[in-house]
Amino acid sequence: MRNIIVKELKDVPIEEKPIEIVERKGLGHPDSLADGIAEAVSKALCKMYMEKFGTILHHNTDQVEVVGGHAYPKFGGGEMVNPIYILLSGRATMQILDKEKNEIIKLPVGTVAVKAAKEYLRKVLRNIDVDKDVIIDCRIGQGSVDLVDVFERQKNKIPLANDTSFGVGYAPLSITEKLVLETERLLNSEETKKEIPALGEDIKVMGLRNGKKISLTIAAAIIDKYVRDIDEYKKVIEKIREKVEKLAEEIAKGYEVEIFINTADDYDRGVVYLTVTGTSAEMGDDGSVGRGNRVNGLITPFRPMSMEAASGKNPVNHVGKIYNILANLIANDISKLEGVKECYVRILSQIGKPINEPKALDIELILEEGYKIEDIEKKAKEIANKWLDNILEVQKMIIEGKVNTF
Amino acid sequence: MRNIIVKELKDVPIEEKPIEIVERKGLGHPDSLADGIAEAVSKALCKMYMEKFGTILHHNTDQVEVVGGHAYPKFGGGEMVNPIYILLSGRATMQILDKEKNEIIKLPVGTVAVKAAKEYLRKVLRNIDVDKDVIIDCRIGQGSVDLVDVFERQKNKIPLANDTSFGVGYAPLSITEKLVLETERLLNSEETKKEIPALGEDIKVMGLRNGKKISLTIAAAIIDKYVRDIDEYKKVIEKIREKVEKLAEEIAKGYEVEIFINTADDYDRGVVYLTVTGTSAEMGDDGSVGRGNRVNGLITPFRPMSMEAASGKNPVNHVGKIYNILANLIANDISKLEGVKECYVRILSQIGKPINEPKALDIELILEEGYKIEDIEKKAKEIANKWLDNILEVQKMIIEGKVNTF
Amino acid sequence: MRNIIVKELKDVPIEEKPIEIVERKGLGHPDSLADGIAEAVSKALCKMYMEKFGTILHHNTDQVEVVGGHAYPKFGGGEMVNPIYILLSGRATMQILDKEKNEIIKLPVGTVAVKAAKEYLRKVLRNIDVDKDVIIDCRIGQGSVDLVDVFERQKNKIPLANDTSFGVGYAPLSITEKLVLETERLLNSEETKKEIPALGEDIKVMGLRNGKKISLTIAAAIIDKYVRDIDEYKKVIEKIREKVEKLAEEIAKGYEVEIFINTADDYDRGVVYLTVTGTSAEMGDDGSVGRGNRVNGLITPFRPMSMEAASGKNPVNHVGKIYNILANLIANDISKLEGVKECYVRILSQIGKPINEPKALDIELILEEGYKIEDIEKKAKEIANKWLDNILEVQKMIIEGKVNTF
Amino acid sequence: MRNIIVKELKDVPIEEKPIEIVERKGLGHPDSLADGIAEAVSKALCKMYMEKFGTILHHNTDQVEVVGGHAYPKFGGGEMVNPIYILLSGRATMQILDKEKNEIIKLPVGTVAVKAAKEYLRKVLRNIDVDKDVIIDCRIGQGSVDLVDVFERQKNKIPLANDTSFGVGYAPLSITEKLVLETERLLNSEETKKEIPALGEDIKVMGLRNGKKISLTIAAAIIDKYVRDIDEYKKVIEKIREKVEKLAEEIAKGYEVEIFINTADDYDRGVVYLTVTGTSAEMGDDGSVGRGNRVNGLITPFRPMSMEAASGKNPVNHVGKIYNILANLIANDISKLEGVKECYVRILSQIGKPINEPKALDIELILEEGYKIEDIEKKAKEIANKWLDNILEVQKMIIEGKVNTF
Repeated sequence: MRNIIVKELKDVPIEEKPIEIVERKGLGHPDSLADGIAEAVSKALCKMYMEKFGTILHHNTDQVEVVGGHAYPKFGGGEMVNPIYILLSGRATMQILDKEKNEIIKLPVGTVAVKAAKEYLRKVLRNIDVDKDVIIDCRIGQGSVDLVDVFERQKNKIPLANDTSFGVGYAPLSITEKLVLETERLLNSEETKKEIPALGEDIKVMGLRNGKKISLTIAAAIIDKYVRDIDEYKKVIEKIREKVEKLAEEIAKGYEVEIFINTADDYDRGVVYLTVTGTSAEMGDDGSVGRGNRVNGLITPFRPMSMEAASGKNPVNHVGKIYNILANLIANDISKLEGVKECYVRILSQIGKPINEPKALDIELILEEGYKIEDIEKKAKEIANKWLDNILEVQKMIIEGKVNTF
Repeated sequence: MRNIIVKELKDVPIEEKPIEIVERKGLGHPDSLADGIAEAVSKALCKMYMEKFGTILHHNTDQVEVVGGHAYPKFGGGEMVNPIYILLSGRATMQILDKEKNEIIKLPVGTVAVKAAKEYLRKVLRNIDVDKDVIIDCRIGQGSVDLVDVFERQKNKIPLANDTSFGVGYAPLSITEKLVLETERLLNSEETKKEIPALGEDIKVMGLRNGKKISLTIAAAIIDKYVRDIDEYKKVIEKIREKVEKLAEEIAKGYEVEIFINTADDYDRGVVYLTVTGTSAEMGDDGSVGRGNRVNGLITPFRPMSMEAASGKNPVNHVGKIYNILANLIANDISKLEGVKECYVRILSQIGKPINEPKALDIELILEEGYKIEDIEKKAKEIANKWLDNILEVQKMIIEGKVNTF
Repeated sequence: MRNIIVKELKDVPIEEKPIEIVERKGLGHPDSLADGIAEAVSKALCKMYMEKFGTILHHNTDQVEVVGGHAYPKFGGGEMVNPIYILLSGRATMQILDKEKNEIIKLPVGTVAVKAAKEYLRKVLRNIDVDKDVIIDCRIGQGSVDLVDVFERQKNKIPLANDTSFGVGYAPLSITEKLVLETERLLNSEETKKEIPALGEDIKVMGLRNGKKISLTIAAAIIDKYVRDIDEYKKVIEKIREKVEKLAEEIAKGYEVEIFINTADDYDRGVVYLTVTGTSAEMGDDGSVGRGNRVNGLITPFRPMSMEAASGKNPVNHVGKIYNILANLIANDISKLEGVKECYVRILSQIGKPINEPKALDIELILEEGYKIEDIEKKAKEIANKWLDNILEVQKMIIEGKVNTF
Repeated sequence: MRNIIVKELKDVPIEEKPIEIVERKGLGHPDSLADGIAEAVSKALCKMYMEKFGTILHHNTDQVEVVGGHAYPKFGGGEMVNPIYILLSGRATMQILDKEKNEIIKLPVGTVAVKAAKEYLRKVLRNIDVDKDVIIDCRIGQGSVDLVDVFERQKNKIPLANDTSFGVGYAPLSITEKLVLETERLLNSEETKKEIPALGEDIKVMGLRNGKKISLTIAAAIIDKYVRDIDEYKKVIEKIREKVEKLAEEIAKGYEVEIFINTADDYDRGVVYLTVTGTSAEMGDDGSVGRGNRVNGLITPFRPMSMEAASGKNPVNHVGKIYNILANLIANDISKLEGVKECYVRILSQIGKPINEPKALDIELILEEGYKIEDIEKKAKEIANKWLDNILEVQKMIIEGKVNTF
């Protein structure tokens, strides 16, 4: 019997609160680049371990430091003069002991990690020349031996929690949250890039809701070689505005939405947000894992948040990663039940116990008028139990990239 | 006229909520080491800039990556075999243009930063040999030139906000929060170290309150050379327990407090939390800035939190740092007003405007029974205005280390 | 009037000396990789400076450290597990002061250097995957400002010597020297690679002449994926032997030549010289600039040698590079004069003087029987003077890669 | 029976040759710093291995890259602004397999190496602040496993040669060679430093002999904090000149000796060779192992030289190190025999054979008039055999620092 508790939360629903602040750092933001590389490295290691051993060995590559380079963007196309330096670190099983042959066998952690990082950058930043604009260094080290051992013993079993930790999640997203999230996704979609090739990937969206009014502040890196002069630049900004306005009309019906794009621009002084590569990391902006979006893709100061950096952590037994993702998955399913307005989930682990047996799984619900907690409790528990029963499925979803970590 | 809003918050006070989770990563935790080094470097740069120019030049050294080493602790004293690698990065004004002499002058950013990092480590980790156990590398780069310029123009004026950002703060701390915070402070105090020299500085405290019961889980690195065998180890753990029990009696009157220390220990298998240096960074645990404690010293998933990494940011115009500290200072003063039970403060900046003119400063109050918001509004605004009037004082407090950033 | 001295050298000609030791580290040897990268970076910087300023600015990129990786070669194709780490360092003009605009302008030294290094590796090592098998890091720093200034003033003039230094050269090569040099060139030629794709680029040739007998010891990295088993390996070795035997017959007529290939192989124990990438740098062999071949492509312990590392030095005023190349060019031309058996040239610079006015240029000649030094002196001086008159031509030959530096 | 050959060399003795060029890079020169650190690291590893295993395990730490820093020396005391970066690399046995416990044990290679490097710098550079002026990084990697195995089997036996290589040596030093060597030693002696504290350790001495005239060119870094102004600077230079003049009178009787100190100085323009730390590495001068002095402490382009970098190589089986030292020791002893004017020794190894059984040991002698090679041959062979019989003694001398490697 798992310790699952369902309670009613007597709180004002999010949409009725006077103020909301929501932020999303887009894919090309230095912190997101760090997150994305960390997760790409973890996935590549998972694949390598699976191919070699049929199981995932211990690793946590949730340490990536992006040190900004130096660039001279200019209309028509500038140049990078100093590459971005990216340090991969963290832990991984780099060697194992073949006890029969009495031999140490080294695993291709370094080469796999470096390659994964480069491939990720090429995929995300359309206009970077990975051969000259980036230095990828690697100081990933061997994890402690005990942990390797733990993994070997666990093969085909439910893994044991690596730590005393917790995860939090909630659903559904508020209007403002949806708008912020979808704005970045739209602007970074394949389709938009075809339409507006000058639009870089470093797109930061901040939403401030004050009653029924939402201010959407967007900082979007523009790629210099696609823009001949300030007039073309203005046109690019206008195209972006049009796309976002249309999206806002769909998502934020009934709200007044103000859109601000690249507010630090000063056309008279010739100050605009131009880049060579589409990311501010080209010009001194640094980034690291876990300082940006939470696993639901957002930074939400007035919602429950975990400080855990999910990206790059191993998807096998790192509860800091798994429980944050799981909490969101469970909250999402429960929020769709009739009568549920908002759902908050938190999961506590206990170190050394199977990860499908958390110490506590708390579910708090804000209900629609006329509904009672007793009506919903059973269904909510069923959802939670189903996810815990299939926890290895969550692991698989992570490895296959079906859930995001930032 | 500043845009300061005071509102009543109709919410259940924290102590009456069913559950609380609170965490503090102690001074020797790898994430806190990263925070502490980042802030030490910033302070040292401030001092250097002041001495050379009478003003603080632009810098943000909030990027420190701690890559774990490799150690073999053992009773009586083991050894480190692979040093901890620490990368300092971020931005700083590394050169200026002497326009009269038509000459570029380089500033001692690298040497000052490296020295500050080593001094900080020596101060915080009593048992580390900085000469062999740590490699301090430095890739701090030049900030963009425009920002240098901005700083020069600002000399002796109120600085302009560097970004659109926000800070959050609240007061008072709950019982659980106080207990978690004070437990780490007690265990890392000069006095306790004299009494229990075997107690390392990597002390992680997690508090879980369930109704009137608090579980305090402490992971404390024990230093091997002070402990001859497992019996002595047990005695050290007992001494720690006694000290914490006493503290809990003082702070958490009326609560049942359970204390768990080094729960992963397994005396039968000889598994104990021994270290050579007092930090888990010696054995593969990595750390980076901004992934640990918020500016109030705690991680509080169910309280408003900012994701901003305050440590290492410049105290002049980085609102991500200043407003988080300021929000806590204001909340703290207001919470002492008669009739105020809890106070939540958030401050929004507007890029390019003086930092004492925020776009909005929201104050939300949970009141004692019988009090009305109208009675308190004026006093609360006075407090907020006083702090904004004296915002350069906050800068000074940061530089002098009178407020913490993690 | 230049200080050119021509003297007769009363010494036994090289072919009549009892013993000779000659070595060549092939293109894929770690030391040669370092040399080659250093020179490729210098050439790329020359090109960049020329394009931007019409002149070559100060740089010396003669510091490259190749830190070996870790590989598991095996018949049919193994894998690299830890990348080779290559640190580019040295000095270059990274920024200049635009005195009119009162602005510092940064130059693309980092990006150009990193790209040049990768392109060089791709060209030289046919079987390396630069994206995963190599980490290229860069710590090239700004040179001292004075030197930049010197360069600016020198535009279109004969550059001034950067140091008190010297160069040495001789001609012709002995039979053994020719054999060693041509063996490596043959084995690393396009043609041979087509014929024997399994032959890697890390080919070290050592020639020992004892009277009329030459032992040629060749260590040649074999690429695993082209070789299925030990029998195929043996066939590859035999093919190499045949090619070298044929070459030896052409070059070393009248000498007995013994050829030893991969002498550390032990077929019974399965020990063979297999690699994944064609260089021993893949498996822990390190390299750095200036530790391998001299500018004539050889290491010749019993001939005059300079310790100067020519590769990577600037071709404008670094006499350590220019004079070593120049001495060989002059010796070569003089050695073709009738009556000259051997020619030794040394050139001394004086710091601060134009490089076409060396402090001394000594020419020592071993003459054919029946010839007198007086007959040859004038012609020899003419040759030396002609080269000094056209010293900017040497600079051009270096930049265009028409002379080798290692 | 060893293959030792003694032959007469019919050549002009060195003192009668018209020209000599001799150079010594002093202890504080960047290349010498690299050599010295490499050797200090090797010695420290030898000590560590001996303490732990009673034998020296495999290592070659002959890869050190010194990347110059940035300094602003000035009369009375300037400052370093960017630290010197020093990368330790090479190979060492970093872990061994405890076959009984079936466990990998890591050895303190990183911590020992970093500490040894710092201690060496503190000893050699009296005025450097290792805590802030230098970054010591370490990328020493594990050697290939086979080699570890070779070492284990060799315990207490004569080691087997690691490679096909050779060493060369000669004796006695010429007058010019002695003068160059002793000049640097005098200027870097404890005694001189007490007398002239302003004299730094980066002292490069170049000797050019033309017939009976020797030009001695000295570049000596002067330490700024001990020199108030240009007049004091001139006095320091004069003191140095006096000391060297006195030495030259003792060593170079019968020669005219001209002494040039810091020839690039230009007192009128205020250009002098000032440093903060006593080494030019503080200001952009880079260095690496094996590019400076040979094992006899000198660079002698017209004497036989090996390109081998001796510093940092293991003293057990690396013939590139041992044979160069051995050849000089043997040459030195033989040169003292009656009738011997000059002695040249070269030793060839054969890979895999005991190092006291070289493939060939050639001795060439220039004899005093009236002596015959037959009279000396036996004694010379005895000397060579005695050294080969006691080859483990050479290893001991290296480890104890009784012979120099640069």
